[in-house]
Amino acid sequence: MPQGQPSVVPDDGLTTRQRRNRALVLVHTGIGKGKSTAAFGLALRAWNQGWPIGVFQFVKSAKWKVGEENALRVLGASGEGGTVDWHKMGEGWSWVQRDGQMDNEEKAREGWEQVKRDLAAETYKLYVLDEFAYPMHWGWVDPDEVVSVLRDRPGTQHVVITGRNAPGQIVDLADLVTDMSKVKHPMDAGQKGQRGIEW
Amino acid sequence: MPQGQPSVVPDDGLTTRQRRNRALVLVHTGIGKGKSTAAFGLALRAWNQGWPIGVFQFVKSAKWKVGEENALRVLGASGEGGTVDWHKMGEGWSWVQRDGQMDNEEKAREGWEQVKRDLAAETYKLYVLDEFAYPMHWGWVDPDEVVSVLRDRPGTQHVVITGRNAPGQIVDLADLVTDMSKVKHPMDAGQKGQRGIEW
Repeated sequence: MPQGQPSVVPDDGLTTRQRRNRALVLVHTGIGKGKSTAAFGLALRAWNQGWPIGVFQFVKSAKWKVGEENALRVLGASGEGGTVDWHKMGEGWSWVQRDGQMDNEEKAREGWEQVKRDLAAETYKLYVLDEFAYPMHWGWVDPDEVVSVLRDRPGTQHVVITGRNAPGQIVDLADLVTDMSKVKHPMDAGQKGQRGIEW
Repeated sequence: MPQGQPSVVPDDGLTTRQRRNRALVLVHTGIGKGKSTAAFGLALRAWNQGWPIGVFQFVKSAKWKVGEENALRVLGASGEGGTVDWHKMGEGWSWVQRDGQMDNEEKAREGWEQVKRDLAAETYKLYVLDEFAYPMHWGWVDPDEVVSVLRDRPGTQHVVITGRNAPGQIVDLADLVTDMSKVKHPMDAGQKGQRGIEW
């Protein structure tokens, strides 16, 4: 229940309305569960506002997130709410012709290039860059470049980045950062992932 | 990407299949953002599995979570995936006739009584008890009773509880606990909540 007054009114020359509608960069990081699910939960709010949503799944396998993907596809096609474009690295980015010749590093970089093009064109109002912290952490995509692109993005475009080990520069840039900390996980008790919960 | 092998195989006499399908209690607590959004993101997976979902919103005001509610209502009515029942304390529980005569403590307790009835009847396969940590923390609903009801619930019924200050007994009982820690929040920088992000 985070309703309430801000504790500080910044001296930034903006009106409350301007400040309220400032586009955000959100980061969900940490080793606990809930980073991606919270990003897709947020997408439900964006959908309800009628926003165009772009999801970029920066994972090798396309097996994960099928529940979220199917749900958001049904919502996007429902005629109510916003639209949803779902882009998957695991199955090959749809805009890339000869994906089979690229290694994972090239694929991740190509995903980021498309995000840059869409940000420049203001294609979406919410970007879910799922698991995007990994290619930055692994050095495949330069976090400093991501910071400068996000800082200078035009219009009102919100960006959510998920994944463990979000680089420090990204955390510094972000408006909202939540660390999902693991207190307890069923795998610790010998339980494997199960459908409906893990995917 | 939590795919992988469990680190321990417990000596509980269950097969892997039995253990895999054991119903879970999940807790999203902590002061950071993402507790409820992650619960509703999880509901997308449950919906995709065709599960009946029951949401119980233990909050005074009904203004929050409208994005999630509208999205899950559209999904539940889509004819694909599972069904969704959405129960709201803020607007008065639908099954209570004379809600206006109840104070918040009575309303919270009445919500829990309905959850108990539904668990006994195995009405749903996923229960989202949103903000339910608060009435327990405030002493309105006895956490020890919640523990015993959840521990003895029949069938395969998953339960997600969100809210700050989840009581220790609930954390002990739970199979999965994530603490959403606040690293940074826009309100700290004087920004108010905005549509599409906070609701």
